Amino acid sequence: MTRLYDDPATFTEDMVAGFVAAHPDHVRQVPGGVVRSRRPRRGKVAVVTGGGSGHYPAFCGVVGPGFADGAVIGNIFTSPSAQDAYSVARAADNGAGVVFSFGNYQGDNMHFGLAVERLEREGVRAHNVVVTDDVASAPRSEASKRRGVVGDFVVFKVASAAAEEGYDFDEVVRVAEHANDRTRSLGVAFDGCTLPGQDEPLFEVPAGRMGLGLGIHGEPGVSERDLPSAAELAKILVDGVLAEAPADAGQRPRVTAILNGLGATKYEELYVVWRTASRLLAEAGVEVVAPEVGELVTSLDMAGCSLTVTWLDPELERLWQAPADSPAYRKGDVGIPVADGSEPAYEPPAPVEQEVVEAPAEGKATAALVVRALDVVAERLRDAEDELGRMDAIAGDGDHGRGMTKGSAAAAEAATEEAAQGVGPAAVLLAAGDAWASKAGGTSGALWGAALRSFGDLLPADRAVTGDDVTSGAAAALASVQRLGRAELGDKTLVDALVPFVDALREATGSGAGVARAWQRAAEVATEAAAGTAELRPRTGRARPLAERSVGTPDPGATSLAMALTWIGGVLAES
Amino acid sequence: MTRLYDDPATFTEDMVAGFVAAHPDHVRQVPGGVVRSRRPRRGKVAVVTGGGSGHYPAFCGVVGPGFADGAVIGNIFTSPSAQDAYSVARAADNGAGVVFSFGNYQGDNMHFGLAVERLEREGVRAHNVVVTDDVASAPRSEASKRRGVVGDFVVFKVASAAAEEGYDFDEVVRVAEHANDRTRSLGVAFDGCTLPGQDEPLFEVPAGRMGLGLGIHGEPGVSERDLPSAAELAKILVDGVLAEAPADAGQRPRVTAILNGLGATKYEELYVVWRTASRLLAEAGVEVVAPEVGELVTSLDMAGCSLTVTWLDPELERLWQAPADSPAYRKGDVGIPVADGSEPAYEPPAPVEQEVVEAPAEGKATAALVVRALDVVAERLRDAEDELGRMDAIAGDGDHGRGMTKGSAAAAEAATEEAAQGVGPAAVLLAAGDAWASKAGGTSGALWGAALRSFGDLLPADRAVTGDDVTSGAAAALASVQRLGRAELGDKTLVDALVPFVDALREATGSGAGVARAWQRAAEVATEAAAGTAELRPRTGRARPLAERSVGTPDPGATSLAMALTWIGGVLAES
Repeated sequence: MTRLYDDPATFTEDMVAGFVAAHPDHVRQVPGGVVRSRRPRRGKVAVVTGGGSGHYPAFCGVVGPGFADGAVIGNIFTSPSAQDAYSVARAADNGAGVVFSFGNYQGDNMHFGLAVERLEREGVRAHNVVVTDDVASAPRSEASKRRGVVGDFVVFKVASAAAEEGYDFDEVVRVAEHANDRTRSLGVAFDGCTLPGQDEPLFEVPAGRMGLGLGIHGEPGVSERDLPSAAELAKILVDGVLAEAPADAGQRPRVTAILNGLGATKYEELYVVWRTASRLLAEAGVEVVAPEVGELVTSLDMAGCSLTVTWLDPELERLWQAPADSPAYRKGDVGIPVADGSEPAYEPPAPVEQEVVEAPAEGKATAALVVRALDVVAERLRDAEDELGRMDAIAGDGDHGRGMTKGSAAAAEAATEEAAQGVGPAAVLLAAGDAWASKAGGTSGALWGAALRSFGDLLPADRAVTGDDVTSGAAAALASVQRLGRAELGDKTLVDALVPFVDALREATGSGAGVARAWQRAAEVATEAAAGTAELRPRTGRARPLAERSVGTPDPGATSLAMALTWIGGVLAES
Repeated sequence: MTRLYDDPATFTEDMVAGFVAAHPDHVRQVPGGVVRSRRPRRGKVAVVTGGGSGHYPAFCGVVGPGFADGAVIGNIFTSPSAQDAYSVARAADNGAGVVFSFGNYQGDNMHFGLAVERLEREGVRAHNVVVTDDVASAPRSEASKRRGVVGDFVVFKVASAAAEEGYDFDEVVRVAEHANDRTRSLGVAFDGCTLPGQDEPLFEVPAGRMGLGLGIHGEPGVSERDLPSAAELAKILVDGVLAEAPADAGQRPRVTAILNGLGATKYEELYVVWRTASRLLAEAGVEVVAPEVGELVTSLDMAGCSLTVTWLDPELERLWQAPADSPAYRKGDVGIPVADGSEPAYEPPAPVEQEVVEAPAEGKATAALVVRALDVVAERLRDAEDELGRMDAIAGDGDHGRGMTKGSAAAAEAATEEAAQGVGPAAVLLAAGDAWASKAGGTSGALWGAALRSFGDLLPADRAVTGDDVTSGAAAALASVQRLGRAELGDKTLVDALVPFVDALREATGSGAGVARAWQRAAEVATEAAAGTAELRPRTGRARPLAERSVGTPDPGATSLAMALTWIGGVLAES
């Protein structure tokens, strides 16, 4: 279990402070994460990794010459916010754009996705390479839905080496995606891990048993079985990974491999497994080049291990073998100068100029209404925080109330500031959405941020808002939520309240109701739908192994959305 | 716990096989351990580390250019045999001698000590640098009795870098001992670890408690207390280590530091501790250079951590910062060529020529008697194996019977072979002693090996053996056992049977008894003394935290010695 911490609430900040103190020659802290302590040459494509923390050396341990330019650092097992990703990317950018790479998880996809949108809005080229190596998490026919696990390490390394060699943006993206296409992992877990400050493990594996394909945050695996011998386990892992070989792998492929320990399965055990795994790979005609046996992607002190294989071609092999010098991973000679203080300081990125466009009176009026609505939502969510927290504790980690309160308060404050500049509703909702996503973090923060921005994009600044406007805005908000969250109706998320809301809003405005009346009617429908999520089967998701307990409890995300829509309806009726 | 293994009895061999398979560019296997895969230049002093396994990256993980020339690999938490150390040293020697360095534990001292003696007999310069950094294991006034823990890493690194720079033998020894003199560690443990194949931990720390100064194999610590916060722990460690600063440390010393995790206390937690530890060190006026935060010396998956500080001078700082390239630790550029197959193969060491000196008839007769005595001891010990094992299981790890059986059988076989060449008793007992120490391993193997060799040295080859000869031989055997084992009378070891044996033998031969009669009388005294060890307080020793259970049980080592002495008396009476 995790025993050493000061305040569990600041565990990640404290960890980063110690990490930066230990490695001043490699990294420097920036808001949201770390970048290299020395800026590389101008024009080098920046590779930025990231994700929740608790996986050291992933992700911040691989920042340095020959490896990543920066790492975005989320809380333990929690995706960083879009603001974090944006901030690290701005600091890491060398004028040639930023390639983000991270494992395929919903929250990471959302937040890095939002960061890419914002960077591109500001003229910085950006792209996400999402790693999908875990063969246990989805069938081959749905390979793009697979989780990212230790394959992250290979993809980061290859992409970073390519950028260091001078590949241009498109070529870095190409080779990173190519590395991901040729990388497969299969893992097992023997025991869970405990978050700082918690007494109970995040999930459990019965003593003497093994979860095959169990995810690194306890996501359900393929099967559970008795703990095998080291040799039997080697066979399970080698067979499982080789069965997923790329179609063009050939008869005597060259590969690299990582036998990774998750934290409490130690080097000695890994080497015992590697004894057989290396023999089995050789017997299968596979030539292993520069393998790694050790802890490269951990899950705190979780017990378990995994095998990752990347089928190489000459380009991938060269990039895998290229020198790197980072806090946790060093290879060959990268020719970095010894620190002598003569190098130029790392320049913070220039602040982006925000253009303020003053809106006509109608736009200002709508913006004021938006501010009032956000104020009411923030105030009432503060009162509802404990109730939402209790609801979330049944199905999740109990932080939904806190996240909604923090996010809505930040959104209301940002909206007030923005509106004071005389801008229209779109600008106010953009600021509010960015603030919500940044301060709330997590999945709901990203979804609310995206929803507010998309809704705002369709509100006019030069005339009064019509029923068609709010319907279109709500539909756009739903679309962005679904695009980010990849949730469908019935998945027991806020989509289950938002879809009926949009339908009812369209129907009510179409039959001639005014905006306020239509909104109120649709909010009633959303409230019913949110309550109905109690009847749905829970989604199994990241770090929610106890989700089966949530049957019979409404989804807190759908519930808080319905609450907010109702309160907004009240504001509209008063205006 | 340790979950992955095939056969617990071959865990270490299996681990080494996997380790070598993973790192062919760095290491190659030799009997007893590993050496570098590429031989360094002729004339470079060889630095060889070693000890029990279960501590990876210590010790085999640091073999490579800029670091160690070889590592001797014992079984889990068990010292390697003298034969192992000798074998690795012969393979690692580049013609300029071998500096062994290892942590201060009884078994390691013995076996490396025997290896040094043998190497020097064969003309290879050799010396042991014993690391004694653990401030909790003995007071400052007895600093040389302190255990070696993570300070090993600093001493190995500094000695290795010095040898790589071209220091001569004496200078490598000097700087290694200097590094040890300026290195202090203090550790804590939160939970034990489990050996492969065992269900119960080697020792336990109660939940929510912390053992301060607890050894890395469960040796008793200074105190037990409630688990502190990370910041409180940092203060305990920093204060504890700085209180032991060298007298000439000065006001604003430069140091290096290692915050080491023992296996299940992970990087994130260590960085949280380092946040405060680095601040406290700075506040104390200590400047930290190139610290390491991570797992450098582990104890399987034991939970705990330690702080090591080495007070630097310019020489130590340069050597600490020097480049190194080993499987588990890399720093800077060591300028090793990329493997292209054109380098010369690593040459196995030339076999040492053993000079066979044929003995006169009297010597051959004595040698034959020695062979007969060893045959009888081996045969009877085989029958007594289970009884000795049960006795040892109460106080120790239950392997005493097995070790004595293996050792005595090997000794009898080697003695037979040696005697067949027509040599005298000294040569026969030398071969028997080497075989016993090599095959039995552990403490008792080393002691028996040394005792046989020392005894044999005083037996004449050119006349019949007298009472004075056997008394002198027995006294020499006792002296070598005490020198190696550092045990005193009353420590509940075989010394408690051997001291009265030697005294009784001296008295009986002095009063005119024949050799056989005197030996039998002394064996009776030894048998009584062995039984009397049941009344003595148990020693607390390495990996024997349950030793309190042994009060009331005779020491198995004293018992088996008394048995053997009695059987030998019977052979003498028959001859």
